[in-house]
Amino acid sequence: MIETPYLLFLGDAPDPLAAKVAQGIRDWRPENAVGQLRLEGCQADMKLPDMTLAEAKAAGAKTLVIGVANRGGVISQAWKKVLIAALEEGFDLASGLHNLLRDEPDLAAVAEATGQALHDVRVPEVDYPIANGEKRRGKRCLAVGTDCSVGKMYTAMAMDGDMRERGMKATFRATGQTGILITGDGVPLDAVIADFMAGSVEWLTPDNDDDHWDLIEGQGSLFHVSYSGVTMALIHGGQPDALILCHEPTRPHMRGLPGYTLPTLETLRDTALPLARIANPACEVVGISVNTQNMSEDEARAYCEETEQRMGLPTTDPYRFGAAKLVDALAAMG
Amino acid sequence: MIETPYLLFLGDAPDPLAAKVAQGIRDWRPENAVGQLRLEGCQADMKLPDMTLAEAKAAGAKTLVIGVANRGGVISQAWKKVLIAALEEGFDLASGLHNLLRDEPDLAAVAEATGQALHDVRVPEVDYPIANGEKRRGKRCLAVGTDCSVGKMYTAMAMDGDMRERGMKATFRATGQTGILITGDGVPLDAVIADFMAGSVEWLTPDNDDDHWDLIEGQGSLFHVSYSGVTMALIHGGQPDALILCHEPTRPHMRGLPGYTLPTLETLRDTALPLARIANPACEVVGISVNTQNMSEDEARAYCEETEQRMGLPTTDPYRFGAAKLVDALAAMG
Repeated sequence: MIETPYLLFLGDAPDPLAAKVAQGIRDWRPENAVGQLRLEGCQADMKLPDMTLAEAKAAGAKTLVIGVANRGGVISQAWKKVLIAALEEGFDLASGLHNLLRDEPDLAAVAEATGQALHDVRVPEVDYPIANGEKRRGKRCLAVGTDCSVGKMYTAMAMDGDMRERGMKATFRATGQTGILITGDGVPLDAVIADFMAGSVEWLTPDNDDDHWDLIEGQGSLFHVSYSGVTMALIHGGQPDALILCHEPTRPHMRGLPGYTLPTLETLRDTALPLARIANPACEVVGISVNTQNMSEDEARAYCEETEQRMGLPTTDPYRFGAAKLVDALAAMG
Repeated sequence: MIETPYLLFLGDAPDPLAAKVAQGIRDWRPENAVGQLRLEGCQADMKLPDMTLAEAKAAGAKTLVIGVANRGGVISQAWKKVLIAALEEGFDLASGLHNLLRDEPDLAAVAEATGQALHDVRVPEVDYPIANGEKRRGKRCLAVGTDCSVGKMYTAMAMDGDMRERGMKATFRATGQTGILITGDGVPLDAVIADFMAGSVEWLTPDNDDDHWDLIEGQGSLFHVSYSGVTMALIHGGQPDALILCHEPTRPHMRGLPGYTLPTLETLRDTALPLARIANPACEVVGISVNTQNMSEDEARAYCEETEQRMGLPTTDPYRFGAAKLVDALAAMG
């Protein structure tokens, strides 16, 4: 649906976390990104060649992907200039922002005049049902986090890759704009109408072979008061058989909420599992995924080992050390 | 905003619960309803005079309120005939259905031709913020249920009435179409975009006097897999100081989910309170509201007494026996 390869637009990202979308594409489909375009003051870097629009065009890029998210989502005038120029130079645009490209009169007009496409991947394109709670065939795994942006998508992506290599039946199920931009489909869950959230997750993870695993991309956190309702809908709509606990040990407070501290992994386990068992009494917590990006390799290994012993669950950083331990845990569930 | 008094349209309601909207208006603002209009097979009865459109017009009715909800929401042809006739006879229409009146071409055309208004109270008319989790002044009480439709709105309405009689500062905060139709404002929470659910509840319950209570209308249930995400957003966006547990003891299974049994009041308490304390560490469970509509008076009194002793919390059916016990519990919190 979205033409590749991309030029990744990083804008004036205030910090690397704001460029989560670009980072996801860079990490999981690097062949889809020929370069990056950054504005002054940009604090994110995908370690891709910095390119002008003309250079990217010459390198074969078809679509300018907005790889940076703003809380609340605003398309600034500084961005507009680049986006309009991109359309004029023959790029399509793709975005997961709340503010839709199509709702900006200048972008819509230039897109129409140039014949280029505006892809707003955040917009639901399906009339989702209300969840019916009926048990579905096949197995499902959901990553739940102590906070937002602790590596839930990466965990599911890494497990998906490992399972495919082993010849297991697995499908990554995207629930956010990054995952949708990477894989080409999914449910933009944070843009779904409240009453249909759980139903959209049921729709995304339908009946399947008994030995097939859906690896559902997590969103938010039960402990993040801004987004906990979205997480709850994932837990009940996804009716997971297996939960993976995700954590970033160096985070000083909940993302965007200075007054809120992160829960422990024990508290996450004891909160998420009883809620998951409402929809699937057989659900188990099967492993722990630690985001060690802010730790040295020694620190990271020590933290994973200590956590594995303390919690009695296989623990790894799937991005740094591979997802094998977590996939072993799923395989053991038969 | 919506002109009163109303004629309540009950349609072909398959059971009394489907007419929750009409029942709420009937119970809490009876002076706003001159009569009811029922189609063949209607299983609901508000004990109001059955009226034709002409009779209701003669009795002074200004607005035909659709007082019956359909799961998933469909405006049938049988309904259309009545709605179009109502517009032609000079009624406005008001509806809380998912399907909007304004989206029906025939209704929109007749409304325009006749100059009558179409009120879709389910549609959010505000750009709600993302929740910031900051502590607000004033106090808030939220009713949480073992299931949907167990009396959460009635509990808040009854407490609101009792508190006003006592001269306490209190405001009922509507979060659903019934409450909005009754009070004239509120947040249609189940129609809010996922990311903004908790923020809309913060917006609805802003800073207030230290001795003011918001009585927030509950929605769904943490144990109802179709709607639990909405409930979660209410708990975190509302940052309640006080929770009231709501239960209907004769319900054989979760509403609309034959495979799901209701939790106990103990399980509801132990699930909801830790989640509420994420947003407000001072939150307490202060009372229990039992919906005894399917019990005799003796059974109802015995059930409330047994529950009060077992749980150690003031217990009543606020609709049948008054809300004084629950309001006493709030007053005791200072």
